[in-house]
Amino acid sequence: MNTQFPHERILMGPGPSPVPQRVLRALAGPTLGHLDPQYLAIMDETCEMLRQVMQTRNPLTFPVSGTGMAGMECIASNLVEPGDEVIVCVQGVFGGRMKDVMERCGATVHVVEAPWGETIPHERIAEALDRNPRATLVGIVHAETSTGAHQPLEGLAGIVHAKGAMLVVDAVTSLGGHELRVDDWGIDAIYSGTQKCLSCPPGLSPVSFGERALARLDARKRKPQSWYLDVTMLRKYYLSGGGAGGGARVYHHTAPINMTYALREALAIVLEEGLDARIARHAAAHQRLRAGLERMGLRYIPSRSLHTLNCIAIPEGADDAGTRRRLLEEYGIEIGAGLGVMAGKAWRIGLMGHGATVRNVDLVLAALASVLAR
Amino acid sequence: MNTQFPHERILMGPGPSPVPQRVLRALAGPTLGHLDPQYLAIMDETCEMLRQVMQTRNPLTFPVSGTGMAGMECIASNLVEPGDEVIVCVQGVFGGRMKDVMERCGATVHVVEAPWGETIPHERIAEALDRNPRATLVGIVHAETSTGAHQPLEGLAGIVHAKGAMLVVDAVTSLGGHELRVDDWGIDAIYSGTQKCLSCPPGLSPVSFGERALARLDARKRKPQSWYLDVTMLRKYYLSGGGAGGGARVYHHTAPINMTYALREALAIVLEEGLDARIARHAAAHQRLRAGLERMGLRYIPSRSLHTLNCIAIPEGADDAGTRRRLLEEYGIEIGAGLGVMAGKAWRIGLMGHGATVRNVDLVLAALASVLAR
Repeated sequence: MNTQFPHERILMGPGPSPVPQRVLRALAGPTLGHLDPQYLAIMDETCEMLRQVMQTRNPLTFPVSGTGMAGMECIASNLVEPGDEVIVCVQGVFGGRMKDVMERCGATVHVVEAPWGETIPHERIAEALDRNPRATLVGIVHAETSTGAHQPLEGLAGIVHAKGAMLVVDAVTSLGGHELRVDDWGIDAIYSGTQKCLSCPPGLSPVSFGERALARLDARKRKPQSWYLDVTMLRKYYLSGGGAGGGARVYHHTAPINMTYALREALAIVLEEGLDARIARHAAAHQRLRAGLERMGLRYIPSRSLHTLNCIAIPEGADDAGTRRRLLEEYGIEIGAGLGVMAGKAWRIGLMGHGATVRNVDLVLAALASVLAR
Repeated sequence: MNTQFPHERILMGPGPSPVPQRVLRALAGPTLGHLDPQYLAIMDETCEMLRQVMQTRNPLTFPVSGTGMAGMECIASNLVEPGDEVIVCVQGVFGGRMKDVMERCGATVHVVEAPWGETIPHERIAEALDRNPRATLVGIVHAETSTGAHQPLEGLAGIVHAKGAMLVVDAVTSLGGHELRVDDWGIDAIYSGTQKCLSCPPGLSPVSFGERALARLDARKRKPQSWYLDVTMLRKYYLSGGGAGGGARVYHHTAPINMTYALREALAIVLEEGLDARIARHAAAHQRLRAGLERMGLRYIPSRSLHTLNCIAIPEGADDAGTRRRLLEEYGIEIGAGLGVMAGKAWRIGLMGHGATVRNVDLVLAALASVLAR
C-alpha cells in the first residue's frame, strides 16, 4: 500500500497556519496512555502554558478534544440550557454559527447584527441587554475569520456584567496573534483553536471557564446535552491532581495524546518569543502586507482589519479560483477564498503564528503581483 | 522553555495501543489546508481504506474529528430525536455510556442488561423489541472494554430489522482486531476509535452510516443537537467529489489534518497485513497470553473473552495499584486498572494492533510473574 507523503505548502489562508518542525517533531513523540503519570504531567504543563497565553488564572483552562468548533460547542452546551435567552453578535459566518449552536442547545437567541466587515459598537450590545433583561450571556467573535474584522472587547465585560450576564468570546483567530487579556478584560468563557496563531496542527480547542461560568455550570438543572463535551465531568479529569481540585483523576475519554505534545511545544514557542513580541510581529507583518497590497491597488474589506487575517476585495476582472489555483500550483502558497456572502468577492490572506514573517509577506506580494499581471 | 520528550512505554492497557514508527512519521507530515486538493485526496483514500477495513460499501464512512466517544455521540445525536424510544444493551461501562448519551439526545432508553462480564443473548433483544414496538434502534457494544466480553453480533440485524429498527454498534475495541463485517452483518451505523486495534494515536473516530441510517437522518424533524457532529452537513464535505455525492466540497469545520495522515498510514498497514491474517494474529496472541496467565493461576472474568482485551481477576492478596505501578516503572509496561464496578477487582491487558505480538505476550507474562512473586 503506497501512501504518498504530502508536499509542503506555505499556508497563508484562514488556517491551518504553517507548523514549525519543532512542533511536528513533538507531535510524533511516543504515544502514552492518558492516565500515565508522564502524560498527566504533560497535560498539566500544557494547561499552565495555556493560562499564560490566555492571560488568565482560571483553573479550568484546558484543550477540548476536537477542533475549534468543538470548543464553541463545548461552551454553548455547558453554559446554555433549554429556555435560556442569550445575545449573540453576528457580523460574519462565525457569529452566525454561534447563533446556530446556541439555538441547538435550546436557547432563544437575540441577535445584534452588523454588516459583514464591520464591528459592533458596545452601545448596541448595551441596548440589546436593556431590551432583553433575561439574557444570560453575550456571545461575540473577537476575530471574525470570514471578514477579517477585529472586534474590540476591552470594556465590554463591564456592560455585560452590570446586567448579570456572562461574556463569551470566540478567539479562534486571535489567540497568540492579537492582544487578548482574558482576566483583565473580564471574559467569562473563551474558546480558540490550535491551528491559527499558535501554529499547531488542528485537533484541539483551548477553552477557559471563569468563576461566573462555573457558577452557571453548577446551577444547571439538567445534564449538558453533550456527553463528550460535558465540563461537569471533564473538570474531574483536568482539575484533579495538578489543578485546583485535588484528589484522583477521573477518566472521562481518551484525549488526543500526541496532539497534546504538539500543543505543549507550540505554546512553549509562544512563551519563548514572549506574548508582546509575538503580537508586535503580527502587527508588523500585517502593516507590511497592507502597504504592499494597497500599492498594488488592492482594497481591504473590513474597516478595522485583523493583523492575523487580511480580507481583501478581489480586483475587477481577476479570476478568483484561477488565481488561487495558480498561487497553489506555481508557488505552493495557499490563500483563502471568500466565505459566505463574500464567496467570489474576497480573498483571505492569513499571517498567523509561524507564518507571520517578512519573508512570507514579500513572497505572497511578489507571487500575487506576478499571477495578477498575466 | 524546556519541554521533556516522553519516554516510550509498552502499551498493554485498554488503549491507546502501541503506534508503529511508520504511523508516527506520517503523523508528522507537513500540515496542509483542509480544502487543499492534496488533502482531499488523502481524506478520500483514508475513507476508502476505512470501508475496506470495516467491510462495508457505505459511501458515508469517514473519521469523526474527535476520539472514540465523539463517534458514539455523532451517531446518537444524528439518529435520535427527542421523544424517540430506543433499546440499549448494557453489560459494562460503555453500554451504560451509550444509554447516557442517547438520553441526552432526548430518547427514552429501554435497557437490556446482563451482569458485567457476560454477553447478551439475541433472544433477550428480540423480547425487548417485542415489548417496545416503537423502538427505532438497538445499540450494542461489540467489544466491551470495561469487562473484556465479546458480544456476538452475527444474525442480530435480522431480528432488529424485522421490527423496523436499526442496529447501532460500538466497535471501538474490535475494529481491526476481531472479525467485524458491517455489510454482511447488516449493521446500520457503527463507530470505532483509532487508538485500539488500528494502532494509530487517539484523535479520530471512524464511523459508517448505512442506508437505513441515512433514511432516518433525512426524515429528521429538527436539526441534530450537535453542530460539530451534524452529519447532514458533514456529508457535504466527506461525500462530494471523491464520494458518491458529486459536486463541490462544502467546508464545515477544520479536520485534524495530521491525524488523518496517521490514520491513513495505520489503515495501509492493516490492509498490507490483510484483515484475516491480522485477526488470526490477535487470536494467537490472546491464546498464548491466556495459557500463560492460567498457568500462573490467574482467572479470566468474562465467560466469552475478547482477544484484544483480556480482563482478569486480581489474585487474592495482590496489590492492585502497586503491581501496575511496578510494571510501569520497572518494565515500562502499561496495563489497565478495572473500570466501574470492577475497579480494584480486575486488570485489563490489551493486545491490540501493533501490540498483539508473541514478544509482548511473553514479556508481560514474565514481568507479571516477577512482580507478583515479590
